[in-house]
Amino acid sequence: MPSATPNGAVPAEVSATTASGEPFLRNAWYVAAWGAEVREGELFHRTILGEPVLLYRKRNGTPVALGNRCPHRFAPLHLGKLRGDVVECGYHGLQFDGTGACIHNPHGGGALPRAARVRLYPLIERYSALWIWMGDPERANPEVLPVFDFLAPEDWFVGTGQMLVGANYELENDNIMDLSHIEFMHPLFATEAVRRGKTQSAQEGDTVWSRRFITEDELNPFLMQAFQIPAGQLADRWLDVRWNAPALMALYTGGVVSGRPRSDGVEVPSAHLFTPETQSSTHYFYAMSFPRAMGPAGEKVAKEQVEVLRGPFEREDKPMIEAVGRNMNGAAFWSLQPVLLAGDAAAVKVRRVLAQLIEAERQAAP
Amino acid sequence: MPSATPNGAVPAEVSATTASGEPFLRNAWYVAAWGAEVREGELFHRTILGEPVLLYRKRNGTPVALGNRCPHRFAPLHLGKLRGDVVECGYHGLQFDGTGACIHNPHGGGALPRAARVRLYPLIERYSALWIWMGDPERANPEVLPVFDFLAPEDWFVGTGQMLVGANYELENDNIMDLSHIEFMHPLFATEAVRRGKTQSAQEGDTVWSRRFITEDELNPFLMQAFQIPAGQLADRWLDVRWNAPALMALYTGGVVSGRPRSDGVEVPSAHLFTPETQSSTHYFYAMSFPRAMGPAGEKVAKEQVEVLRGPFEREDKPMIEAVGRNMNGAAFWSLQPVLLAGDAAAVKVRRVLAQLIEAERQAAP
Amino acid sequence: MPSATPNGAVPAEVSATTASGEPFLRNAWYVAAWGAEVREGELFHRTILGEPVLLYRKRNGTPVALGNRCPHRFAPLHLGKLRGDVVECGYHGLQFDGTGACIHNPHGGGALPRAARVRLYPLIERYSALWIWMGDPERANPEVLPVFDFLAPEDWFVGTGQMLVGANYELENDNIMDLSHIEFMHPLFATEAVRRGKTQSAQEGDTVWSRRFITEDELNPFLMQAFQIPAGQLADRWLDVRWNAPALMALYTGGVVSGRPRSDGVEVPSAHLFTPETQSSTHYFYAMSFPRAMGPAGEKVAKEQVEVLRGPFEREDKPMIEAVGRNMNGAAFWSLQPVLLAGDAAAVKVRRVLAQLIEAERQAAP
Repeated sequence: MPSATPNGAVPAEVSATTASGEPFLRNAWYVAAWGAEVREGELFHRTILGEPVLLYRKRNGTPVALGNRCPHRFAPLHLGKLRGDVVECGYHGLQFDGTGACIHNPHGGGALPRAARVRLYPLIERYSALWIWMGDPERANPEVLPVFDFLAPEDWFVGTGQMLVGANYELENDNIMDLSHIEFMHPLFATEAVRRGKTQSAQEGDTVWSRRFITEDELNPFLMQAFQIPAGQLADRWLDVRWNAPALMALYTGGVVSGRPRSDGVEVPSAHLFTPETQSSTHYFYAMSFPRAMGPAGEKVAKEQVEVLRGPFEREDKPMIEAVGRNMNGAAFWSLQPVLLAGDAAAVKVRRVLAQLIEAERQAAP
Repeated sequence: MPSATPNGAVPAEVSATTASGEPFLRNAWYVAAWGAEVREGELFHRTILGEPVLLYRKRNGTPVALGNRCPHRFAPLHLGKLRGDVVECGYHGLQFDGTGACIHNPHGGGALPRAARVRLYPLIERYSALWIWMGDPERANPEVLPVFDFLAPEDWFVGTGQMLVGANYELENDNIMDLSHIEFMHPLFATEAVRRGKTQSAQEGDTVWSRRFITEDELNPFLMQAFQIPAGQLADRWLDVRWNAPALMALYTGGVVSGRPRSDGVEVPSAHLFTPETQSSTHYFYAMSFPRAMGPAGEKVAKEQVEVLRGPFEREDKPMIEAVGRNMNGAAFWSLQPVLLAGDAAAVKVRRVLAQLIEAERQAAP
Repeated sequence: MPSATPNGAVPAEVSATTASGEPFLRNAWYVAAWGAEVREGELFHRTILGEPVLLYRKRNGTPVALGNRCPHRFAPLHLGKLRGDVVECGYHGLQFDGTGACIHNPHGGGALPRAARVRLYPLIERYSALWIWMGDPERANPEVLPVFDFLAPEDWFVGTGQMLVGANYELENDNIMDLSHIEFMHPLFATEAVRRGKTQSAQEGDTVWSRRFITEDELNPFLMQAFQIPAGQLADRWLDVRWNAPALMALYTGGVVSGRPRSDGVEVPSAHLFTPETQSSTHYFYAMSFPRAMGPAGEKVAKEQVEVLRGPFEREDKPMIEAVGRNMNGAAFWSLQPVLLAGDAAAVKVRRVLAQLIEAERQAAP
């Protein structure tokens, strides 16, 4: 049982995320890769939830995700060759089609053993990304994928990036759901929104929102320009984050001349999508979008701004989150009795929802 | 019990190699080093079956293998000095002779505690190598060492090499006993022998043979030259491998103008000898031999050809076998339910014989 | 039970140091850092007995040791900022004073949760070092700190150094308590004191002494100069080590013209103070002192001589002790049945006293 010391804002019945010991939600969509990472004619591989996954595109562009382990002698298939739509194992030459079935055995009489197949993962390409379903394929439902309109390349210029972080993915949920850290960790983006702003958290079904806003904020030059606030004017600012399981966050950050409606201001959406590589390492897929209506300038700014993000992410967030992970020294989060502050309400809701979903999945397992 | 899916050629009662959990055959000869690796006047050390071993030569050239751990404070003896035939520990100066007995104690009255001795391993120098017996010294019998005539430096120029591979040694047995991988992994040596050739496996006592041959093969230029096939002619090719426990393989690879008897052709013998460093790392000792009857040209070609082998071994076999080991993620081979193909028959016989030998040894242990 | 083979000098009832499995004495003073390592205005951190510790100085110079883990989200506090006497967490800005109490919460209403505090470790500055108490703060008694007069900067020029050694700290006790290794490992300091000298060990309460002396020794030029022995003269030499738990050693090394009283000679005291970082790594704090009465020359020689020590410590002791640790392969010391020699008497007394103290502490624990 958790023995956290809540600070008023947090319900006391918070349960330990890892009570069952099961670290991952399996029946969920995870980002396997940005679409552009998987190029035609190439074999791409990534470890996801501890499983080796092979990604490639068929000649018609359709992406495929297969288990990256030949069932014969366990060679990683990405060390083989892509021949049209077919993958040939680089060790003894078994060939597999885009469904994972073995379609060619160069040995002996060439019989195809029934067990000679690799796992086929449900995969959909949407919102500039390839989304993989790590659980029961029967339950893979594209409709449950949360909406990330602003990642749709039809309407937006989407700048993307990715990095590997050496820490558990739930620490990334915590990090994004409590953006008060911006003031202390990210000088470039810092405002007084933490000290002087207001925060709200809300749960809608299994969706959790963290909202942070401040009126009459004095912005630094970087933010003045980003939100097009005229010199000498104060701004109203907002940072709204929507979370969906397991670790998919949309962040809407905006500003407007103080007193004016939000619709008169500038809002830049960004995505913060986390996929566990293992229990102690996490793929971080991030993106920042600008409307296609901006024309060529929008494409340029999308690429530039996502590069501006990379700096703080790599130099400020990543070292801190990895240091937190090491400092936990293998202990479960709640067992360390974290002190909870007002700003943690959303992150705690997220841990609770995620724990409930994982527990429900575990109990439903055959 | 294994739940492999055999493909006709493989008996169903295959037992798990690691059923008893004991990973090594101990009462067996292993290559500790090539003879030339252990130079007079120097202390050489290597970890074998997880045990630290010290190797050196006495002044008369006789090689010695001792436990590389001083019984006083556990210092590795190779950090000390070789004084004539005697090893002096580099920490507190105890001296041990070539039987492992402590013969000098510089401390106090100089008494020699009875327990002050290091383990003496049976060691024989034969076939260009130093062979160590890791089990009960009473049972060390040089006569059970398999014959490797072509490694005898009296009659052959023997080109040798060694490397450390980060994988379990049984994966190396698998690799050599199924040479069909040549076609897919080694462009330099590839022929159509896999697709069009025939394979046979045979067990004679505890010796296992894998034989692979093809008639009317069209060779690449490298192989045409190696087997002295005139331009424009087809060749008959063979690849015969003899295995003895634990991981000692002789490979006879040959070619002859199609239709002529083997004795008219060229056969080059090579050795593939594996010694576990640990359960997950393996010393690979390889050699290729040419008859002394060739004269000085033979010595040159032996050195050159073994260097030609090093390339594919380091760049093609080693990365693949290490990737297979990582992909198995600590699981026992049979527990992963490998799909078995026709070409696996010999390798499966090897796993079965080795498992039986290890199990017999375990049951005989006091 | 140990089955060591004692060599006359060692009692048979030696108990295994790690019988209880508890590797550390907690209610004891350990060196956390040399005083000069922790500079004003900076946050310093070190892992001690597996615990992350933050060290800094308040504006009045008083050193502070706090747990280096924010109770909110477990960030290491050394990644934050020192603001006067107060530490601000670099993640979400909680502030802690020099008692470990949270004194500022920038979030929400700013309430200070009662649990928001970090551990305060008792810390005293004495003998050029910061001494930390890792056990029950109620029991921290400065009076039990062993006396190291010669580290007091009021009276001595103290040259200091430190390094991290990748081995268990008890191997360092063994190393210093049996200086016979000097003859075999350290050519620079070697004399014939091992072969021809006499050794004594003594226990006084929980203090253990190892004394080594030799008469009419022929010194090498380095030692001739160090002990001011005129050319052509023989010397009487001594090496006396005092040990206190857990791993605090004073070494008095001296020499005098043969036949003269010690008080006519030169004695240089040095300190060898070990603090476990983890069970398998150890902070080594060493120092060598020369009296302030020597004037400026003394300061120079203190700095130079401690640098002379660094060479052998890093190139000779450290590799050997780390190799011994690896060679023990995780086994408990006594389980390996070490052969004990005359020179081990003091080291064995030390292991016995330390084991008794740890066991007594364990039994007294609530």
